[in-house]
Amino acid sequence: MSSTYGESLKLSIFGQSHGPAIGMTLDGIPAGLPVDTDKLQTFLNRRAPGQNDWSTPRKEEDRPEFLSGLLDGYTCGAPIAAVIYNKNTRSGDYSNLKDCPRPGHADFTAQVKYDGYQDVAGGGHFSGRLTAPLCIAGGLCKQWLEQHGIHIAAHIASIAGICDDAFDSISPDLSSVPADFPVINKNSGELMRHAIAQARSDGDSVGGSIECAIIGLPVGLGDPMFGGMEGRIAQIVYGIPAVKGVEFGLGFGVAQCRGSENNDDYAIRDGEVVTLTNNAGGILGGITNGMPLIFRAALKPTPSIAKQQQSISIEKMEQMPLVVKGRHDPCIVPRAVPVVEAAAAIAIFDAILSQPPRTRRTY
Amino acid sequence: MSSTYGESLKLSIFGQSHGPAIGMTLDGIPAGLPVDTDKLQTFLNRRAPGQNDWSTPRKEEDRPEFLSGLLDGYTCGAPIAAVIYNKNTRSGDYSNLKDCPRPGHADFTAQVKYDGYQDVAGGGHFSGRLTAPLCIAGGLCKQWLEQHGIHIAAHIASIAGICDDAFDSISPDLSSVPADFPVINKNSGELMRHAIAQARSDGDSVGGSIECAIIGLPVGLGDPMFGGMEGRIAQIVYGIPAVKGVEFGLGFGVAQCRGSENNDDYAIRDGEVVTLTNNAGGILGGITNGMPLIFRAALKPTPSIAKQQQSISIEKMEQMPLVVKGRHDPCIVPRAVPVVEAAAAIAIFDAILSQPPRTRRTY
Amino acid sequence: MSSTYGESLKLSIFGQSHGPAIGMTLDGIPAGLPVDTDKLQTFLNRRAPGQNDWSTPRKEEDRPEFLSGLLDGYTCGAPIAAVIYNKNTRSGDYSNLKDCPRPGHADFTAQVKYDGYQDVAGGGHFSGRLTAPLCIAGGLCKQWLEQHGIHIAAHIASIAGICDDAFDSISPDLSSVPADFPVINKNSGELMRHAIAQARSDGDSVGGSIECAIIGLPVGLGDPMFGGMEGRIAQIVYGIPAVKGVEFGLGFGVAQCRGSENNDDYAIRDGEVVTLTNNAGGILGGITNGMPLIFRAALKPTPSIAKQQQSISIEKMEQMPLVVKGRHDPCIVPRAVPVVEAAAAIAIFDAILSQPPRTRRTY
Amino acid sequence: MSSTYGESLKLSIFGQSHGPAIGMTLDGIPAGLPVDTDKLQTFLNRRAPGQNDWSTPRKEEDRPEFLSGLLDGYTCGAPIAAVIYNKNTRSGDYSNLKDCPRPGHADFTAQVKYDGYQDVAGGGHFSGRLTAPLCIAGGLCKQWLEQHGIHIAAHIASIAGICDDAFDSISPDLSSVPADFPVINKNSGELMRHAIAQARSDGDSVGGSIECAIIGLPVGLGDPMFGGMEGRIAQIVYGIPAVKGVEFGLGFGVAQCRGSENNDDYAIRDGEVVTLTNNAGGILGGITNGMPLIFRAALKPTPSIAKQQQSISIEKMEQMPLVVKGRHDPCIVPRAVPVVEAAAAIAIFDAILSQPPRTRRTY
Repeated sequence: MSSTYGESLKLSIFGQSHGPAIGMTLDGIPAGLPVDTDKLQTFLNRRAPGQNDWSTPRKEEDRPEFLSGLLDGYTCGAPIAAVIYNKNTRSGDYSNLKDCPRPGHADFTAQVKYDGYQDVAGGGHFSGRLTAPLCIAGGLCKQWLEQHGIHIAAHIASIAGICDDAFDSISPDLSSVPADFPVINKNSGELMRHAIAQARSDGDSVGGSIECAIIGLPVGLGDPMFGGMEGRIAQIVYGIPAVKGVEFGLGFGVAQCRGSENNDDYAIRDGEVVTLTNNAGGILGGITNGMPLIFRAALKPTPSIAKQQQSISIEKMEQMPLVVKGRHDPCIVPRAVPVVEAAAAIAIFDAILSQPPRTRRTY
Repeated sequence: MSSTYGESLKLSIFGQSHGPAIGMTLDGIPAGLPVDTDKLQTFLNRRAPGQNDWSTPRKEEDRPEFLSGLLDGYTCGAPIAAVIYNKNTRSGDYSNLKDCPRPGHADFTAQVKYDGYQDVAGGGHFSGRLTAPLCIAGGLCKQWLEQHGIHIAAHIASIAGICDDAFDSISPDLSSVPADFPVINKNSGELMRHAIAQARSDGDSVGGSIECAIIGLPVGLGDPMFGGMEGRIAQIVYGIPAVKGVEFGLGFGVAQCRGSENNDDYAIRDGEVVTLTNNAGGILGGITNGMPLIFRAALKPTPSIAKQQQSISIEKMEQMPLVVKGRHDPCIVPRAVPVVEAAAAIAIFDAILSQPPRTRRTY
Repeated sequence: MSSTYGESLKLSIFGQSHGPAIGMTLDGIPAGLPVDTDKLQTFLNRRAPGQNDWSTPRKEEDRPEFLSGLLDGYTCGAPIAAVIYNKNTRSGDYSNLKDCPRPGHADFTAQVKYDGYQDVAGGGHFSGRLTAPLCIAGGLCKQWLEQHGIHIAAHIASIAGICDDAFDSISPDLSSVPADFPVINKNSGELMRHAIAQARSDGDSVGGSIECAIIGLPVGLGDPMFGGMEGRIAQIVYGIPAVKGVEFGLGFGVAQCRGSENNDDYAIRDGEVVTLTNNAGGILGGITNGMPLIFRAALKPTPSIAKQQQSISIEKMEQMPLVVKGRHDPCIVPRAVPVVEAAAAIAIFDAILSQPPRTRRTY
Repeated sequence: MSSTYGESLKLSIFGQSHGPAIGMTLDGIPAGLPVDTDKLQTFLNRRAPGQNDWSTPRKEEDRPEFLSGLLDGYTCGAPIAAVIYNKNTRSGDYSNLKDCPRPGHADFTAQVKYDGYQDVAGGGHFSGRLTAPLCIAGGLCKQWLEQHGIHIAAHIASIAGICDDAFDSISPDLSSVPADFPVINKNSGELMRHAIAQARSDGDSVGGSIECAIIGLPVGLGDPMFGGMEGRIAQIVYGIPAVKGVEFGLGFGVAQCRGSENNDDYAIRDGEVVTLTNNAGGILGGITNGMPLIFRAALKPTPSIAKQQQSISIEKMEQMPLVVKGRHDPCIVPRAVPVVEAAAAIAIFDAILSQPPRTRRTY
């Protein structure tokens, strides 16, 4: 396992935050799929850090260079490989992390797992920067899904306890989410941005959650037990650094429901089978039921904060205070929104490619 | 994918609720591991339905017959196969489900996915009964983990909104959970059982959540990104029917935290590196940090209820009322507690077997 | 890996020669495929030992009991599980094999790998008996391939240096192979049977080779590099005990050819693209070209012979003579013919299920 | 499947012959392994085309650029990624291959499989050039195996029917193979080079075979059935373009043997268990027995020849003569020798990483 994902697709992500380059290979893509690189760049720009009040001042173009798999604007059936060369790295900031791990980061666990050989600069392979190649793969899958009428959108569900409006679980309006600061309710967005600014000025950070909706899915996608859509999506979404919770439909809300409340009654609308509510989040028995697939992910606050924290010296085996230097997002949730979309797109496209041929198609 | 799980282990689960038998094969188990079948049976009995006020009256012995992989009380290196033959099945109850799917069940999604060829009796392959072979595999893994000082225990975290006490996240007392009705706080347990009885008398059902703690884990288990412990555990836990949410450590609680609250400061205790809090649930960067690994799963209320619901006739493509007959648990949460332990044991044992050899072992 | 195979299919084989049962689970099979169990039994009987001059007197019915995955004569989409309970076992013959390994068997390698915990009786998990469940899975896949016009047949290519006629590589006559002693040329068959009888009377055994042809394959099956048809087939064929060589088309014969001899010129016949020769064995770049897929496997002589051989005492670490007792085939090649067909059927059906959807279908 | 390989390692190879770059990602490598890039370059140079009488005049430096996974000369635990940028490409030569496929190449099968979207220039993803990244991965694995006393060497076993001496199967002298033209017997080498020169002057090409030996392997490597060393090695060796046969030990020679000839008697030498012959090629039951692992691969003659051949026009669906232009090796066998070593190194290193922990280590 490690940094590879997929059943029919084989996604492999590589790179360290301050290494020569980051990138991905994507094997198993059918030939003849059109690729709109401008559209992909627009998608990647949603994740890229920039000059605003909620993200790190570190600037990266995040412009992928495709090394293989594309020809004349179409996939050619060969594995797709793309890289982003790193620039503007400041490794100087990270010199003492092997001895003195940052709370909330993977410094300590990596130090033990990799026996001190790991690349600590900028978090190395554990950096949020590795979500850029994830967005290359996901951005491509998202394009192909859209060509088949499957659309994905995510928004900030909450930051620092301030909640955005939720998607309508029956007919979510995916177009209601702006690209710049992705919230449905502008007022909530204002409060969130203020909370982020406040955290920044306090040398602190804030966490939040993201809601993602997928519409246009066929009925019958996914497999029983360990191949269910929940497990497929959760595995890749948990590959996004900082994610500590994933839930589908009502999610943890089901724990307080009675069956008569939680069950989604069936009905016929325009000759299609629908459910009158969508507490299941579009998944029954791990398999899509044709209703919008809806899930949420919880992201912890950026562990890098300016405030003094308690760490240790691994060499001296004694506690010591630590102040983390360097440039950091006070809140990674806004930039993580396209990453969640990308992860969902990969999981769904992989599930589609993994479906066996059907013997007939009636219901 | 589908009903197989594992990176180094290869677990394959088969069977339908009312078919001839259910069972599992487990490939990749090292030779020479002792197997205590009595201890396994005791574990399986925690899941088995029985004569009490919260589970289905359907009686099953759930006594596995081992067909291969064991010799003289030890694993012999060959794949382990075990089956449980089904008895006391009443397929008559399920005759019309192909045309008229039960809300909250996989009847409709399976009908479309399998083109009507699926086994609907008792939910077929989607039945909670399939968690019995999961417990065979998990019960074995749990024994082997215990021999290496790794202990797993789960309890009912909540039912119908009634919460049990939580495990102490720094030093959970796993022995504080009784086998019969697994709650830490007896009073909460009483209220839960009353809520279950009330739901039963109302012809309804209730949902809940389960908390699981694993102690004794080495530092450095798990892999970055998609091989992280969160993703490994979530994928298998989502294989348990009814699970709609999985979270680690503070889980969705991180969304409301600031970094200064959520980060776990380090300290040295008895020559070991520890954290003073455990909001990370024992996982940083997908890798265990030596603290207790703690996660929670949300389970929806049993979809089978006696109350009338709205379904459809797939043949007539029109809505029609449905009253579900048959024997059902008003709440599956108590019986799911050992299943969650089993899933965790499999994920962790698989992760251990998947670790590459280390070049040295200092920190 | 170990005893599991498949990309889209997940085949898992379990059992030991003298354990309670042997069997297999097959996950990933589409729903709605008809299963003719009589036809399957006829296929299995070709492998089963019996009363003749070339196989072991050990009698086994090899009648599979299906535990799951089938309903009313069709696959139901759930994993298929089948077992064969062992009878007529004589474990007494194998008592001292842990200390004194049989030359040519896996006794020594298993002793070291499994630290003495392995099941030695009858070769345990390494027994040729494990090819029975392989034939269950392969017999099913063979039926489904036939329903799509894909036909597989193998015959004895040689035994003890006596060669059968080869299949016509352009239009092999699969019906020319009888079921009882599968050779194309009856006279060669007579000589082979005589050679086997001679070896038996000498307390010795003989090896041979098997040729397999598959017709009716679509163009475009298989993937580049490690997903090529040669690698897919070789991996599973090497799973058959005793196989030490696998070659495709001209196979090792290509080493002596010039390109002008080996290249297969193209032509059009009846509006189809064909090649005028088939030295490639129907595979170019790992992908089927529509010509018959032809491969051969070499099987070593049964290692169990009555003649005295030199073994060792692992305990004493000294050489000592060994005379192997028990019942054995003087030649396993005839019984291995359906096993090779089964392996090919599984590899091809898996490759078919693994093909991504095509964007268009012209050439 | 496709262009990925490995159980514990995850090797992914990408690129097209005339695309921007070729390369590989290698996930699952333990941290702390030293990397000697000069030694790797020396290994890669054995495969690279150059100025001699048996290879293509096309010049490529084949100097890998490492993008991730290495730090200060050691693996850092993150996936390793390396690329080779293509230079000196002449795509003009390949313009009409979509309509008029070259005999012996993947042009036709790729045209059908990829619906005409494939990259035909230089064979695209099917080019022998893709063995360069295979050699990057294999060259690294070879270094690490050598550090554990496991040594691999291959030589030309035959070209155009001219045979080199074989390795001594009990104690092969790996140092007896020179780097430039890898044969044991210089005289045979002279004859081979003459045969190649003759083929070149005839506008033709010649095939051959390669023998590979691995010494220093532990006893107990590999798994039963589909995880056996034969299947593991065959799958990756068949990933090398032009390979049409793979055999182990006596290989197809076993078909003519009696058991008493083929079985390898045991003995004790210097306190170690050995066999007096090595017809098994160091593998019993799929598992290494501590003797040298020996296999051979057959490679077809380069399909690109200057002589006129019969092809077709796919558009017109009629036969037409074809003369292939461009630069080609009259024999790829010499350059394939390090590629076979690389493939073996990857398969063995992967098998080592896939072994479960042993409970004890006596025999």
